[in-house]
Amino acid sequence: MKALVYHGAEDIRCEQVDDPQPQDLDSAVVRVTRAGICGSDLHIYHGHGFAPESGYVVGHEAVGEVVEVGSGVRRFAVGDRVLVPASTGCGRCLACDHGHVARCDNGMMRAFGIGPALAGSQSEAVAVPAADCSLRTIPEGIDDKQAILLTDNLPTAWFGARRAGIEPGDTVAVVGLGPVGLCAVGSALVMGASRVFAIDLLEDRRRHAELLGAEGVGGDDTKEIVLERTQGRGVDRVIEAVGGDATIRLALSLARIEGSVSVVGVNQNPHFDFNMALAMVKSLSFHIGLCSVQAELPTLIPLVLSGRIDLGRMVSHRFGLSEGAEAYRLFAAREDNVRKVILDPTR
Amino acid sequence: MKALVYHGAEDIRCEQVDDPQPQDLDSAVVRVTRAGICGSDLHIYHGHGFAPESGYVVGHEAVGEVVEVGSGVRRFAVGDRVLVPASTGCGRCLACDHGHVARCDNGMMRAFGIGPALAGSQSEAVAVPAADCSLRTIPEGIDDKQAILLTDNLPTAWFGARRAGIEPGDTVAVVGLGPVGLCAVGSALVMGASRVFAIDLLEDRRRHAELLGAEGVGGDDTKEIVLERTQGRGVDRVIEAVGGDATIRLALSLARIEGSVSVVGVNQNPHFDFNMALAMVKSLSFHIGLCSVQAELPTLIPLVLSGRIDLGRMVSHRFGLSEGAEAYRLFAAREDNVRKVILDPTR
Amino acid sequence: MKALVYHGAEDIRCEQVDDPQPQDLDSAVVRVTRAGICGSDLHIYHGHGFAPESGYVVGHEAVGEVVEVGSGVRRFAVGDRVLVPASTGCGRCLACDHGHVARCDNGMMRAFGIGPALAGSQSEAVAVPAADCSLRTIPEGIDDKQAILLTDNLPTAWFGARRAGIEPGDTVAVVGLGPVGLCAVGSALVMGASRVFAIDLLEDRRRHAELLGAEGVGGDDTKEIVLERTQGRGVDRVIEAVGGDATIRLALSLARIEGSVSVVGVNQNPHFDFNMALAMVKSLSFHIGLCSVQAELPTLIPLVLSGRIDLGRMVSHRFGLSEGAEAYRLFAAREDNVRKVILDPTR
Amino acid sequence: MKALVYHGAEDIRCEQVDDPQPQDLDSAVVRVTRAGICGSDLHIYHGHGFAPESGYVVGHEAVGEVVEVGSGVRRFAVGDRVLVPASTGCGRCLACDHGHVARCDNGMMRAFGIGPALAGSQSEAVAVPAADCSLRTIPEGIDDKQAILLTDNLPTAWFGARRAGIEPGDTVAVVGLGPVGLCAVGSALVMGASRVFAIDLLEDRRRHAELLGAEGVGGDDTKEIVLERTQGRGVDRVIEAVGGDATIRLALSLARIEGSVSVVGVNQNPHFDFNMALAMVKSLSFHIGLCSVQAELPTLIPLVLSGRIDLGRMVSHRFGLSEGAEAYRLFAAREDNVRKVILDPTR
Repeated sequence: MKALVYHGAEDIRCEQVDDPQPQDLDSAVVRVTRAGICGSDLHIYHGHGFAPESGYVVGHEAVGEVVEVGSGVRRFAVGDRVLVPASTGCGRCLACDHGHVARCDNGMMRAFGIGPALAGSQSEAVAVPAADCSLRTIPEGIDDKQAILLTDNLPTAWFGARRAGIEPGDTVAVVGLGPVGLCAVGSALVMGASRVFAIDLLEDRRRHAELLGAEGVGGDDTKEIVLERTQGRGVDRVIEAVGGDATIRLALSLARIEGSVSVVGVNQNPHFDFNMALAMVKSLSFHIGLCSVQAELPTLIPLVLSGRIDLGRMVSHRFGLSEGAEAYRLFAAREDNVRKVILDPTR
Repeated sequence: MKALVYHGAEDIRCEQVDDPQPQDLDSAVVRVTRAGICGSDLHIYHGHGFAPESGYVVGHEAVGEVVEVGSGVRRFAVGDRVLVPASTGCGRCLACDHGHVARCDNGMMRAFGIGPALAGSQSEAVAVPAADCSLRTIPEGIDDKQAILLTDNLPTAWFGARRAGIEPGDTVAVVGLGPVGLCAVGSALVMGASRVFAIDLLEDRRRHAELLGAEGVGGDDTKEIVLERTQGRGVDRVIEAVGGDATIRLALSLARIEGSVSVVGVNQNPHFDFNMALAMVKSLSFHIGLCSVQAELPTLIPLVLSGRIDLGRMVSHRFGLSEGAEAYRLFAAREDNVRKVILDPTR
Repeated sequence: MKALVYHGAEDIRCEQVDDPQPQDLDSAVVRVTRAGICGSDLHIYHGHGFAPESGYVVGHEAVGEVVEVGSGVRRFAVGDRVLVPASTGCGRCLACDHGHVARCDNGMMRAFGIGPALAGSQSEAVAVPAADCSLRTIPEGIDDKQAILLTDNLPTAWFGARRAGIEPGDTVAVVGLGPVGLCAVGSALVMGASRVFAIDLLEDRRRHAELLGAEGVGGDDTKEIVLERTQGRGVDRVIEAVGGDATIRLALSLARIEGSVSVVGVNQNPHFDFNMALAMVKSLSFHIGLCSVQAELPTLIPLVLSGRIDLGRMVSHRFGLSEGAEAYRLFAAREDNVRKVILDPTR
Repeated sequence: MKALVYHGAEDIRCEQVDDPQPQDLDSAVVRVTRAGICGSDLHIYHGHGFAPESGYVVGHEAVGEVVEVGSGVRRFAVGDRVLVPASTGCGRCLACDHGHVARCDNGMMRAFGIGPALAGSQSEAVAVPAADCSLRTIPEGIDDKQAILLTDNLPTAWFGARRAGIEPGDTVAVVGLGPVGLCAVGSALVMGASRVFAIDLLEDRRRHAELLGAEGVGGDDTKEIVLERTQGRGVDRVIEAVGGDATIRLALSLARIEGSVSVVGVNQNPHFDFNMALAMVKSLSFHIGLCSVQAELPTLIPLVLSGRIDLGRMVSHRFGLSEGAEAYRLFAAREDNVRKVILDPTR
C-alpha cells in the first residue's frame, strides 16, 4: 500500500510499504479514508521528532473503515466507520477503561506515527492495537472533516481549556491560532468564557477566530492590548497552542494574579527558563500535557453533533497521499492561508 | 410619592405613599428609574403571597439612582446608578460578604416588597437597608432593561442552572418559558449544554427560546418527544421555572438516571407528593431554592456585557406606574405575547 | 449446592438448589467464601422486596474465588480472589466502562438476589454475568470482612456522602447507624468533616460511631441538640441511612439553609409527603439513589488498604449458611448489639 | 515600644521603636500577645528578603488584643482577641470581600514586616490597615499557639494542598517538614489522602510527621523509595514546602503522570530551569503561589476547633522579644529539634 514515510528533515515521501499486519487478536485494521496533518507532525518534518530513527510511516489522525478484526475485538466489526485517535493504551487497565490512555496503568501509552514502534496512519490502511480501547464509532451526523478534528486537534484543545479551569464568565487568551488554537477558541466559548482574546501574527487566522466569536489580537503590543482590555489585570485563563519558548512566556505574562496557563503546544525544551519569582507573585497554575483523546470524546461528540462546536471552517486544504510532500511543505510554510490540511488516501 | 400597593387578590393599585425613610446609617435611598414585575409577584397578585398582610408596597426588581446615603455607607454615593437586587442580608457576616444573603449568618435575609417588613420597589423610590451589601453598581455598557433582568430573573435562572450541575455537553430541559425560563435557556447554553429542550404550552414563548438556540417542545406528548430525542434516556439536567406541582412532576419524569432537577419556580406546597421509589431507581438529585442575587452577579455581569447572554429579546412591555394594575393584569393573563413587563416610574 | 431462598415474609430458608450455570461466554462462576446480609435484604425478608415472586436465592454481597470463566472473560482466571459487587451492567457501554453500572447505557443494570432474574450470592456459589464488568480483584492486604463491606455497604455510604457534597470543614449528620450509617460516618470523616453527628436510637450503635470520631446523638430531642450544637443553623450535609419516612423528614429538618440531604436508605414510598415550602426557604438539595459499587472502588480500596477507613469494628456476627434463618432473624430484630452479619458458606 | 528590626544579613535586633500609628479611620492597633517566626522570615534574615531596604520591623504572624480602632472600623472593638493574618488588601473590592487579599482588585495586597511599607508584628503592637478586611476574631476554644499557626503556616499549607487538587484516596508527598510542611501533612490527611509520604533530611521532623499519620522518607534514595511504594507510578499530588531549586526538582520527579506539584515554599529564582519535555510527558500541573489567609480561615477554624487538624505538636520554642536574635539564629540553624518558634512580647 501507499504511505507517507519520514526520511529525515524536510523529507517525507509517499512510498509503497507493506500492508499493515494486526499484532495480536485484540488488533484491527482500518482502511483510511481521511488522514490529518497535525501541528506536532511538523516537529518530525523539521527533524525535531520524538524518535531518533527514520524510515517509519507518519500520521496520527485518521478516519476510516474497519476491514479486519482479531477474535478478541468485542466492540467493532468489519465495515464500521471509525475514528482512530492519536494514541492508545494497554486496553485492560482502569485508566484505559476511562479512556485515559495517556496514564495507562501498564505504561503502554503509544502514539501512532511518531517512531517505528507503531506505524502511522497517513497511509492507505493502519493496524490498530487494543482496538476496543483505541477506536471510537463515528455517529451519524458527523462528517469526515469533523471526524478528523476529533482524532486529536479538538480533544487536545478541549483538554487544554479544561485544565486551564475555564469557568463561565472568565476572560481567556488563546496564543496561536493554528487548528488547535482555533479549536481552543471554540472550546473556551462553549465553556462560557465572557471574552476570548485570539492571538496570532497572521491576520487571516485572527479573522477566523473572530468568526467564532473571539477578539483578534496580534503584533508587538499584544501584551499591552490584552492588559488594557482587562483593566490592567490580565486574563483569567491562557491556552498556549504553539509550543515555543517565546509564546509560553507571552502566555505567562498575560495571566492575572491566581490565573492559569495551559500549554498544549509541544515544547521539548528540557531547560525552559521559568520565572519562579513572577509565578509566585502571580500565584500561577501552569499546566503542560498530552491529551487522552478517548477520554474527551464523550463530551465533545454531542457538542459537535449539535453544532455548539463549529468545525466547518477548520479544514482549508485537501491533498492525495501522493501529494503528501507538498502538503507538508505548504502546511509548514503557512502558505495560502492554510489552516487544517487533510490527506485523502482514496484519491 | 407614587407606588404600587397590594390590597388583596387581583387588587394592586397605584397610590400615593410616604417617601421612603432610611432605617439607619447603613441605609440608602434609591430613586427608581425602572422596576420589573416578577413571576413571583403573581403569587402575591393572586392572593397566594408570602405574608398574610395587605397594604404594602410591592416589587423587588429595581434599577435607579442613589439619592441619599447614610454615613455608614462606604461604597455608594449620591448619583450612583445602581441595581437593587431582590433581597439583602445583615451586611456584616461572612455569608453576606460573599453575596450569599439567602444564608445570612444572622438570619437577616429580607426580600423587598413581599410583605410589610420591607417596602417594595415598584415605586418612585425605595429605601435600601445594608446598602453596601444590597446594592451593586451598574457598569457602563449595561442598559436599564438588562439591569432589571440582573436584579432577579437572570441570577435566579443561572443559580438554578448552576445547582442543576450543567456541564459542557449535557442535554438540558427547561420547563416553563417565562422570563426566568428564557434566562435559563441562555444560561444552559453558556454553560455548554449540547442541546436545550425548551418546554412551554405557548408557541410564542417556544419561538423566543428557539431564537436563543433551544429546541421548542410543547403539548401533551412533551415527555415522549424529549425521551425520543434522547434515545429513551431522558435529559441530563432539568430546570423547572414554573413552580406548579404538575410541571415539577414533568421535570422529574424528564431526567435521566443520575440526572438532576432544579426547581426555581416558586412552589409553596407543604405536601408535595414525591415519588421516592422513582427517585431511587433514577438516583435523582432534586434542588429547590432561592437565589442570592449578589452572589451570582460577578459571573453574570461580564457575560451580559460581552453579549454572551443576550437579554435583548426579554422585555416585551413597558408601563408607567399609574398603569400598574393593567400591567399586572396583562402579565397574569399572559396576553399579547407578554414576556417581561417593566414599569417606568419616571413616566 | 446450599443457598438461602426467599419463600415469603420472614421465611428465608437454607436449601439445596441447582449449581449455578454461566449464562454465556462472558460469565464466570464464583465459589462464595463469605456473604453479607445487607439492610436492604431486610426489605425482602419483611415481604416488601423488589420483585413480586418468591423462590429465588437472595444475597448481593459476596467474596470468593473464581472457579469457572467463559472464553469471553479477559480479566479474571480460575483461582482469582474476587469481590462480587451488588449489581452489574451490560459490560460493553461507556457507563459500564466507567463502573457506572446503575446507569448502563443499554439499561441492563441488574442486582443479584433481589428477584428470580439473577440468583443471589448467599449460597455456596454464584454465577456472574459480564464478569469483566462485574468482578473486582481483592488486593493483598484486604481481608474477607473488609472485602464484604466493599461489595455494597461502604461504597453506598461513600456514594451518599459524595453526593451530599461533603467538603473539608463541613458539619455532617448521619441518620441511622447500621453498617451503612457507620460507613457513612467514616466516609464523612475521610472527606474532611469537622464534626459528624451520629444519630441512632440504639446506644450501642452510637458508641461505635463515637469510636470512629463522631458525636453520638439519640432520642426525642435529636433535632434540638443538633441545632444547638450548630448555633441554630443546622448541619451542612445530612446522610440518611435508614430509608424511613420519619428519618428522611428528620434529615430534612437538620440541614442548614443551602444544605443537602442524601438518602441512601431504601425508601420505596411513591407518595412521600415532601414539604416544598420548607425546601424552598432552606434552598435544599435532596439526593436519592443507588450506588454503582464498581465506580466507587478505585477510591475506596486505597483508603481501606491504608487504614484511613477502618472497617475493623463493623462485623459483629458470623453464621453458617444453614443458620441463615437465624442470622436474618437476629439482624432484623437488632438483637445482641448486632452490626454487620456475615454468612460463611464454607462452614 | 520594643520590636525586632532588620539591619542586614543575620542581623535582627530587638530595639525601641515608635508606637504604631493607625494610618486612617479604617485602621486598628493590636497589642501583640504572641508572634511567630515564619520560614519566609529566614529569607529576610539571610539577606535575601523582599525589599532592598533595612531598618524595618519584621514579622507577619501575630495574635493579640485590639487596643485602638478608627471610626471606620465596623467589625472590631477595643478588647477583641484577634488574629493578624500575614497580609491584607484594600478592604473594599470584591476580592477582599471574599478574603482573597492576594488578588485585591485595587492591587493593594500588602504583607506585614517584609519591607518598610508596612511595619511587622514581631513587636509589642502593630498598626493594621483595613482592619475589617485584615483581622479575624479568634473563637473560644482556640489557644494562642493554634492561633499563631492560623495567621500563615496552616492556611499556606492548606492553600497549597487545595491547589494541588488533593482528593480522597490520593497518594501525597510533602517535601520539607518545617511548620508549613507539617501543616501540609495534616491538611492532606484531612482532605482524604490515603497515604502521605513526609520527606525531610531531619529524622526528628519525619518522626513528627509520622505522629500525624504520614510515612517518613529521607535520604538520597527518596525518589526511589517513593516510586517503589507507589508501584513505580509516583504520587498523585506533591506539596513542596521548602522553596529550594533542588527540592522543587525532587517534587517534580515524584509526581505521577497527570499528577500535580504545588509549591508553597518561597522560591525567587527568576531563571528556574524547568524541564518542559518531562512536564509534557508527565502532563504535569505546577502551582506556585501566595496564600490569602483570610480566604482559607472559614474552612480551617472549624477543623482546628474540632481537633481534626492537630496543631498541638507544632510549637517547639518560645522566646521573649529581647531574645529575638537568638530565636532567629536557632530557627535558621535548625538546632535543638526546632519546629515552630514563637515570640512572647508580654514576657
